[in-house]
Amino acid sequence: MSNDGLFVTGALNVWNANIDRADKLFFALTADQLQKEIAPGKNRLIYLWGHLTAVHDRMLPLLGFGPRLHAELDEIFLTKPDKAVAKIPSAEEIKKSWNEVNGKLRDGFAKLSPADWLQKHADVSAEDFAKEPLRNRFAILLSRTNHLSYHLGQAVSATK
Amino acid sequence: MSNDGLFVTGALNVWNANIDRADKLFFALTADQLQKEIAPGKNRLIYLWGHLTAVHDRMLPLLGFGPRLHAELDEIFLTKPDKAVAKIPSAEEIKKSWNEVNGKLRDGFAKLSPADWLQKHADVSAEDFAKEPLRNRFAILLSRTNHLSYHLGQAVSATK
Repeated sequence: MSNDGLFVTGALNVWNANIDRADKLFFALTADQLQKEIAPGKNRLIYLWGHLTAVHDRMLPLLGFGPRLHAELDEIFLTKPDKAVAKIPSAEEIKKSWNEVNGKLRDGFAKLSPADWLQKHADVSAEDFAKEPLRNRFAILLSRTNHLSYHLGQAVSATK
Repeated sequence: MSNDGLFVTGALNVWNANIDRADKLFFALTADQLQKEIAPGKNRLIYLWGHLTAVHDRMLPLLGFGPRLHAELDEIFLTKPDKAVAKIPSAEEIKKSWNEVNGKLRDGFAKLSPADWLQKHADVSAEDFAKEPLRNRFAILLSRTNHLSYHLGQAVSATK
């Protein structure tokens, strides 16, 4: 493997390991357990799961993998806080969207060469990117991997 | 910057951003606030901070930056659960060790070339590394960055 390939594969391994952990954690919870708050008065587990799904869904256009699959999640799980929207998707619906989105990301990752990872993401202009070459796809992968770890830590301490 | 340099700098940016977040969070807490548990019956915030310090301290020999500075933290914050050891370091002592360890890591990071990041870490044999080249320093950086995010998520939900 080339040096570039080793950097990319290392980062993808951490992403994949986190997705596996999240799958194991959320798939094991009942609809009732998903109503639990991570701390008194804080987000419920189901909100975290929907939030992670929305954030991963937004990665699709950001990384150039095509349009979003579930933009309807944003209002419920991203722009508004937990409990602001009365009717939210069921655990089964979130699970379906979660698998769909992460599957499409996995397919997109598989098609990128190391050099592709260093290209700009969709939220930066070509002009800005010329000055700030670190605003690339790889930075999105790293930051979203850490975002997932951050919420996994919260979910684990509420469930174990 | 070379492609290799872009991958490394991207990963170091996330590490540095997480250290900054942790600094801001922990430095702002009083000794009393640090006694708070992240969830009922779970680790106290001071335990998390000591735990992170011990894990970062172990990165020094692992990455070839010299011997550990605070191996005495392991028994209290790593091998034993919270509250198993009656006398633990004060918040001031942990802060001092935390800054010392992260400073030495920062100095070490600054001396590594991109190729150095792809060399084996100290816990893998040369023989195993020949078969598993992903067990390199870069993998340690990514996994410890995620470890920090994981516990930051827990600490934030207990403090805000």
